[in-house]
Amino acid sequence: MKHSSPSEKETHEQAGAAGRTPVTVIGLGMMGSALADAFLNAGHRTTVWNRSADKADALVAKGAVRAASAAEAVSASPLIVVCVLDYEAVHEILGPAGGRLAGRTLVNLTNGKPEQARKEAKWANEQGANYLDGGIMAVPQMIAGPEAFLLYSGSPEAFETYRRELDVLGAGKYLGEDAGLAALYDLALLTTAYGLIGGFFHAVALVGTEKVEAAAFTALVIPWLQAMIASLPSQAQALDANNHTTDVSSLNINKVGFVNLIEASQEQGVSTELVAPIQALVNQAVADGYGADGLTRLVELLKKPQLL
Amino acid sequence: MKHSSPSEKETHEQAGAAGRTPVTVIGLGMMGSALADAFLNAGHRTTVWNRSADKADALVAKGAVRAASAAEAVSASPLIVVCVLDYEAVHEILGPAGGRLAGRTLVNLTNGKPEQARKEAKWANEQGANYLDGGIMAVPQMIAGPEAFLLYSGSPEAFETYRRELDVLGAGKYLGEDAGLAALYDLALLTTAYGLIGGFFHAVALVGTEKVEAAAFTALVIPWLQAMIASLPSQAQALDANNHTTDVSSLNINKVGFVNLIEASQEQGVSTELVAPIQALVNQAVADGYGADGLTRLVELLKKPQLL
Repeated sequence: MKHSSPSEKETHEQAGAAGRTPVTVIGLGMMGSALADAFLNAGHRTTVWNRSADKADALVAKGAVRAASAAEAVSASPLIVVCVLDYEAVHEILGPAGGRLAGRTLVNLTNGKPEQARKEAKWANEQGANYLDGGIMAVPQMIAGPEAFLLYSGSPEAFETYRRELDVLGAGKYLGEDAGLAALYDLALLTTAYGLIGGFFHAVALVGTEKVEAAAFTALVIPWLQAMIASLPSQAQALDANNHTTDVSSLNINKVGFVNLIEASQEQGVSTELVAPIQALVNQAVADGYGADGLTRLVELLKKPQLL
Repeated sequence: MKHSSPSEKETHEQAGAAGRTPVTVIGLGMMGSALADAFLNAGHRTTVWNRSADKADALVAKGAVRAASAAEAVSASPLIVVCVLDYEAVHEILGPAGGRLAGRTLVNLTNGKPEQARKEAKWANEQGANYLDGGIMAVPQMIAGPEAFLLYSGSPEAFETYRRELDVLGAGKYLGEDAGLAALYDLALLTTAYGLIGGFFHAVALVGTEKVEAAAFTALVIPWLQAMIASLPSQAQALDANNHTTDVSSLNINKVGFVNLIEASQEQGVSTELVAPIQALVNQAVADGYGADGLTRLVELLKKPQLL
């Protein structure tokens, strides 16, 4: 309608707001507050609850509804998002309110492990709720921004029904019906970040021994790591094909280079604890007769728990 | 000259070829061969030598000049590029030819440590040669391509004189007069690559326990790690300012998350050897009272050799 009157426009906007799904957010730490804030900004009636009630003050000032109890918070909306410290806190908070979950959808964005997510899904289903487990691949400041994405697994119906609401927080990616998958991917992505940051920290410590500033060094690191990232799809292909032949960089060559890296670190007075374990894997693979293979061969050694 | 005759053009091209600096490449492994090939393709008279002479055959077929000895190879050009397995090989090859180095420039692209580079610079200077040490930040296939870059340190005069020739191999970056700097940066960049790849390998092993293909997982890893790389400049700033306060991700929060990562890895049957050392650093920093700080605080712990 091109020429709507003011009153028509007003009616339309009210309908729009009223048409949005009421949402409850339980847990108002830095991340939970960011989630509730995103729902509020998107025009959802947002009910909030936190064990320490004062954490809700800022959100209530912005229009959120403060629930008097977790049970009341659960009853307020068809979609309940929980983001607390750990699964123990999830149980303590939701356990007494379990009966209220029937017919609702519980989206649990609390950090945890695949096994915990699977147990939680089972429990929620027993209460008559649909369950989605999720992993937030963003820091609180990124929520609702273009770079935030969230992983979900569990009830496909829940994801289909509330996909639009969940996309308010960041792009949602559904991984499958096994509720443990989101936690598995979340932890795996977290690992890649720790790897990158651990390597960066060792490197900064190493060049720092010669008074090289981290900022100057980082200008070189960025294009270098971008090139490394560009090589990951071909490494993934090698891994999926279980074909570790290489014409780029053999384990034999890496073994030689690693001696320099470890010795130079020691000579410069930098602890080798973050890099020595990779060297040990390289040496092990060479000793096992895979020296002509590429680095991807090392993944097999990680599949044996507690090798060293 | 817009309308040059064919003969004028020919003369110009011959002068161009003749005007290019003759170059010698010693060491014809995968990398050395790629270097010689790049010089040949750029129109340089390229003299080559390798301990196993047959490694030169393909290059000679393309127009390279085969030297009968290392000494003859050194004498053939004002610019000598050496790329062999290690510094021991450099000594064995160049030692007997040392007298021929006077007045020439030696660019040593052999992998090594800062201390080795400094000793080599001293030795080369004693022979009357200018010395540049270099680190090749590329695999052989990338040489002369847009993504290859090389780090140099040592004689500023040598870099200025032969900058154009060296840029044939990839973009050259001069780091300073201390000949050890190129090796230091090289090893530090190598460390960042190992960190990234180690984290990726653990992650692939982890999701692989639930039959997730590496390629599917990698599609998520790439934007995630690109976001991590985008955070490195602010981390570098924190490190240079020695200010580790954070409103993003405290060590306390990382400590909690790490327990899930380690336990889930163990539960899924994946060895924790590549991630446990970072956890130990996080726990140490929290125990030291830095729990409210960001991850950058960990770099200080690496500056104490052999902490664990």
